[in-house]
Amino acid sequence: MKSEFEIVKKYIKPLVDDNDKYSIGLSDDVGIVDNLIFSTDTIVEGIHFFSNNKPEDIAKKLVRVNVSDLIAKGVRPGFCLLNFSAGSIINERWIKNFMYSLNEDFKKYKINLVGGDTVQTKGKTVLSLCIFGKNPKSNIKLRSSAVPGDNIYVSGTIGDSALGLMVLNNKLQVNKNFKEFLIDRYLIPKPRIELVNIINKKANASIDISDGLIQDLQNLCLSSGVGAKINFTDIPLSAAARSVVNKNSKMIEVILNGGDDYEILFTGPKGIEAKNNIRMIGKITKGSKISILDLKLKNRTIKNGFNHIFK
Amino acid sequence: MKSEFEIVKKYIKPLVDDNDKYSIGLSDDVGIVDNLIFSTDTIVEGIHFFSNNKPEDIAKKLVRVNVSDLIAKGVRPGFCLLNFSAGSIINERWIKNFMYSLNEDFKKYKINLVGGDTVQTKGKTVLSLCIFGKNPKSNIKLRSSAVPGDNIYVSGTIGDSALGLMVLNNKLQVNKNFKEFLIDRYLIPKPRIELVNIINKKANASIDISDGLIQDLQNLCLSSGVGAKINFTDIPLSAAARSVVNKNSKMIEVILNGGDDYEILFTGPKGIEAKNNIRMIGKITKGSKISILDLKLKNRTIKNGFNHIFK
Repeated sequence: MKSEFEIVKKYIKPLVDDNDKYSIGLSDDVGIVDNLIFSTDTIVEGIHFFSNNKPEDIAKKLVRVNVSDLIAKGVRPGFCLLNFSAGSIINERWIKNFMYSLNEDFKKYKINLVGGDTVQTKGKTVLSLCIFGKNPKSNIKLRSSAVPGDNIYVSGTIGDSALGLMVLNNKLQVNKNFKEFLIDRYLIPKPRIELVNIINKKANASIDISDGLIQDLQNLCLSSGVGAKINFTDIPLSAAARSVVNKNSKMIEVILNGGDDYEILFTGPKGIEAKNNIRMIGKITKGSKISILDLKLKNRTIKNGFNHIFK
Repeated sequence: MKSEFEIVKKYIKPLVDDNDKYSIGLSDDVGIVDNLIFSTDTIVEGIHFFSNNKPEDIAKKLVRVNVSDLIAKGVRPGFCLLNFSAGSIINERWIKNFMYSLNEDFKKYKINLVGGDTVQTKGKTVLSLCIFGKNPKSNIKLRSSAVPGDNIYVSGTIGDSALGLMVLNNKLQVNKNFKEFLIDRYLIPKPRIELVNIINKKANASIDISDGLIQDLQNLCLSSGVGAKINFTDIPLSAAARSVVNKNSKMIEVILNGGDDYEILFTGPKGIEAKNNIRMIGKITKGSKISILDLKLKNRTIKNGFNHIFK
């Protein structure tokens, strides 16, 4: 079967006009109706979470992957609907713990649950949240509005989640502190709600990093009709990720392409990085090339997208 | 495991206040934010549809069970987000046919797709639609606003879908014409979009019949704090359903409790039944009893809910 992206493009995109004002041609993570901005993400047992994950962590993942989509557009979440398709792992205690944790996150991010549906599957658990928030007074920040000369910024640190999944699957050995840190970064996204005002006021284009830094940079560049030049050495790494790369430089690939970071990649004028845990990693350029200047590997240029490694 | 209703009540309802204006305490099928009315329903392979159903029919079922929720509130659908969790039955041809049919229904009901998510499961297919429409100028019609003295109305005919499922599963034999009619009623709901203005202008309380006439009448009565007295002989039956009942009066139970009718059950003043394929089946009463006056079986009174038979 073709990749998710190809299927979406081929059969779902024709359901809307490219310049449709509600769906934005399904080209971004959000839709717009009146003064509300909508997004939805589904997480599936066996793909995005596993039966041995704690229900508390799964609830937080569900909320936060959705919150992340809105924040990256400069929109504060406000409301949601929950579709809870309970598989065979679910029992009453599981639901109790899941709902307790879900409620904690609804309070943390100030989200009102306005509706939902509960069904049973005969197999895996599937969880969807449809989330929306009020449109800020300025326009929302699409992925399609980067211009040559923009600085490229990222929040937080990159690659921890992908490394965390490797640690969890015993494909990577690290010390105990790093192990806990990386696994936590994988299990529980930390969307950058504290940056919503900066994105909203300062960004030109913005996207959350869910498919990997390079993939999402490419998504942003393709949508904006621009290229990019980034420096690997400027990409913010945690102490844990830096230690992994120092031991094995091939792990750079995992960090660049791993996904599930839920940090924000955005473009804008100079001077944003001074505070707020934001780093400038490069520049938007004319053309369509994405170049990575890299001290450890050879410099390289990306023309076509990477496949998801960890999806 | 406890029933869906009990789980929802016990663990999801505490996530909102009973008098919360957005969720209406999760007591109805809809939520309200600003001028928009929201609903969401999920259909699952192996429960609500089967791997040998045509993707075209599954798409229509997905749209229509959701449309039905809004119509019953007197709200015209306008927008939706799709969560498409593709299981192992899905191939490119399936998706092509599904999306073609989905698009037909989006046009039929004038629904704009504004967003969605596509993921793969490792098992069953799970499909969610989050649907919303603009609030009519009058208030939306909740299930909680029936008053003693109201007439009780239903649209269309009752029980066909439940009988259709029995025919499909070789648990009921009927002639060829009836067979096609009943199976079609099960596979492809026909939500009563033509009644949205009447519901909106005339109804006091309203609910769509998805869990069975008696169950949904009871849901309406419980929410409104009223009872009801209905006459089985006034319940509109198709020629097919009438033929089934004439041969075996026990099938009355299937018709009353079967579910998946996607007709509208509503209450209001006299005189609505004169047109539009609507029938008056009884009266809202004081108290909490639901009495069914029945020529074939004994009269009976319902105090506690029925379990879903076909869900």
